[in-house]
Amino acid sequence: MKQYKIFVTGKQGIFDPAGETARHALDNLGYTGIESLQIGKYIQLTTDDSVSAEAVKQMCEKLLANPVIEDFSIDETATSATSEIAEKTNAGADE
Amino acid sequence: MKQYKIFVTGKQGIFDPAGETARHALDNLGYTGIESLQIGKYIQLTTDDSVSAEAVKQMCEKLLANPVIEDFSIDETATSATSEIAEKTNAGADE
Repeated sequence: MKQYKIFVTGKQGIFDPAGETARHALDNLGYTGIESLQIGKYIQLTTDDSVSAEAVKQMCEKLLANPVIEDFSIDETATSATSEIAEKTNAGADE
Repeated sequence: MKQYKIFVTGKQGIFDPAGETARHALDNLGYTGIESLQIGKYIQLTTDDSVSAEAVKQMCEKLLANPVIEDFSIDETATSATSEIAEKTNAGADE
């Protein structure tokens, strides 16, 4: 079993209506001092061992993210007995 | 300046229509082997130094997440001149 965390965010310069709305609403609630607020997607994907990281990248490009207006990054977190080792060797891929 | 990453996910047992739809669509595209797929929100928040972590938690409870059906977790990542040091000392909090 493999676990992936996928972060989908709007590209630089693309308007984010949900984030803008939340920012104004927080301002109205009295929370000042907010400089920016962007809302993206956080996808938790669990697959069996047959699914490669390359396949997950393709899934993002084809369906989970819109590459025209969104960027994505993928963190792989293996589960089962080898999880801790896998997390260490994968540390370079962290955000 | 402070930066926070907020992850909003559906509570255990709450139906996730977006995730379910994406899972079926991936299946139709030929990507088999997916065991689960959940779609939540990934919020990137930048505030000035006057905003406390407690205030950010309140923002999540009041507006950014729906505590009835969603859980959230907050990662703080300090920026400004001390960003690199802060990122290193904060490495344990990385997802």
